[in-house]
Amino acid sequence: MGSLKVPEVVPSPTEDSQRLRKAFQGFGTNEKAIILVLGRRNWRQIKEIRENYEKLYNESLIDRLHSELSGDFRKAVITWTQDPAERDARVAREAMKARWKGIKELQVLVEISCASTPNHLMAVRQAYCSLFDCSLEEDIHASVSPPLQKILVGLVRSYRYDKVIANLEVGKAEASKLHEAIKKNKLDDDHIVWILSTRNVFQLRQTFACYKNLYGNTFDQDIKNCGKGDLESLLNVVVCCIDCPEKHFAKVVRDSILGLGTDEDSLNRAIVTRAEIDLLKVRFEYAEIYKSSLDDDVIGDTSGDYRDFLMTLLGKGPKGV
Amino acid sequence: MGSLKVPEVVPSPTEDSQRLRKAFQGFGTNEKAIILVLGRRNWRQIKEIRENYEKLYNESLIDRLHSELSGDFRKAVITWTQDPAERDARVAREAMKARWKGIKELQVLVEISCASTPNHLMAVRQAYCSLFDCSLEEDIHASVSPPLQKILVGLVRSYRYDKVIANLEVGKAEASKLHEAIKKNKLDDDHIVWILSTRNVFQLRQTFACYKNLYGNTFDQDIKNCGKGDLESLLNVVVCCIDCPEKHFAKVVRDSILGLGTDEDSLNRAIVTRAEIDLLKVRFEYAEIYKSSLDDDVIGDTSGDYRDFLMTLLGKGPKGV
Repeated sequence: MGSLKVPEVVPSPTEDSQRLRKAFQGFGTNEKAIILVLGRRNWRQIKEIRENYEKLYNESLIDRLHSELSGDFRKAVITWTQDPAERDARVAREAMKARWKGIKELQVLVEISCASTPNHLMAVRQAYCSLFDCSLEEDIHASVSPPLQKILVGLVRSYRYDKVIANLEVGKAEASKLHEAIKKNKLDDDHIVWILSTRNVFQLRQTFACYKNLYGNTFDQDIKNCGKGDLESLLNVVVCCIDCPEKHFAKVVRDSILGLGTDEDSLNRAIVTRAEIDLLKVRFEYAEIYKSSLDDDVIGDTSGDYRDFLMTLLGKGPKGV
Repeated sequence: MGSLKVPEVVPSPTEDSQRLRKAFQGFGTNEKAIILVLGRRNWRQIKEIRENYEKLYNESLIDRLHSELSGDFRKAVITWTQDPAERDARVAREAMKARWKGIKELQVLVEISCASTPNHLMAVRQAYCSLFDCSLEEDIHASVSPPLQKILVGLVRSYRYDKVIANLEVGKAEASKLHEAIKKNKLDDDHIVWILSTRNVFQLRQTFACYKNLYGNTFDQDIKNCGKGDLESLLNVVVCCIDCPEKHFAKVVRDSILGLGTDEDSLNRAIVTRAEIDLLKVRFEYAEIYKSSLDDDVIGDTSGDYRDFLMTLLGKGPKGV
């Protein structure tokens, strides 16, 4: 379940557009009003507001937010206000264009392909081609080396069957194929790539369970036993995003907060992309794993309007309508 | 250009539904009226008619056509009246379920992935998952053996960049990779599969032209020189569907007509799926290659309402409104 709280009676897109326009006008910007409108609407409602705002005032809402706001707050609000497929296409592009492409950068591709719906992944691929001058897989191919390339290209080309269906025999047979590859220490084996990038998540969870039953260790653990390189790390992210995406995003939030300074891009990404999907479960997993409150940790590491906005997406923002 | 002729003034979906309903009622079915309505509407108009018909009469138009018509005529009309993505998903499924899966069966997958728009291919994958109990690539994997499996799975997972863009340097570099694979007689080489299943068709045409410039033979010819097996035949279909889909469909029509009897499934498929896309060019290529008229050959091999319907899709049906 998502954490986003939409009011029981939602104002019309025109009313919301008018409130936003008013928040932009006059001396200074009324950030609180922006948070109260945008932080309490789901993506379909925001889409209508964007369209309505543009029609009414002949300017792009995103452009206006860009000129009115600043810093981390601006980045979070704009990320939230974009169309989800376009948002992820842009995140993927940023990862591809980063000079240093470590697991932190590449894992966004795994999140998009393993922790989103199949239709969302398709929409991201379409948005990528519309926004940029090549396809997502061409960019991965050009900017990531094997063996990570092979796995990432496989994943982003997937369109998983999305009904709740899993076959025990398939689970056993494919667990055995995964184990064969592990024994050979060949983590970019064709079978591994095929299984992880084709089977539906319910089947894969069954396969992972069969793996543990048959071979004692979890598949995840056996990947770790193969080594500590990027390939192992990436595959661990894949398995976690398939097996329990909430745990993965709890980890993303934790890593973004730990240590000196905050990694706002990762924090934004986790909260913004999951607010409508499973942020309540992410909060629960966070408490389970880290024995700490996700909300308190976010509050401790952020401030001002930025904090208020994230807390609103977490369903605990400032009072008011 | 397509051959379909839509009247300048198109009746409303309600009027069309009423005409169809009238054609179904009374003693016998008025096939001519059905041809005049459905054979002269594009897929968007037919979609509206389907929706409207169902709302007005509380029955599915397709089901009613099924009970009113028979034989090849029924099959052609129903194929035409289906949603294009669903139609192709069903054609792909039929190919996967065929006991004997030769090139004639498998080439429909190539047509869907190399001679359709990227968005159409995505829609077919979505329709496949909705209609059947697994994804298209899972079915290919389960029912086609390597090396054809590898090529077909690669192709159906593609989402090609669809703007008219081609880079000469990419063309030369990838022509060289194709040639390396040919020299090794390894037609399911990773590079071949990657290039053919990822690059946009304009880039691929450039690459094929570079190949001819650099190595004398066409890529197509060099594939043929590798042997006469299914792998070579399938790759030739891939290259033809990318390089000049009209030539491919001219060949499909020709093969369906040649010899004793007619292969109506293939004939339907070529005419129905290309009537809105490029059937005028297919007709032209047919005349160029076979020194014969496509229209005359179709007329010679078909009869009755079936013939009238195909000729209507070819823009030369019976007179009347």
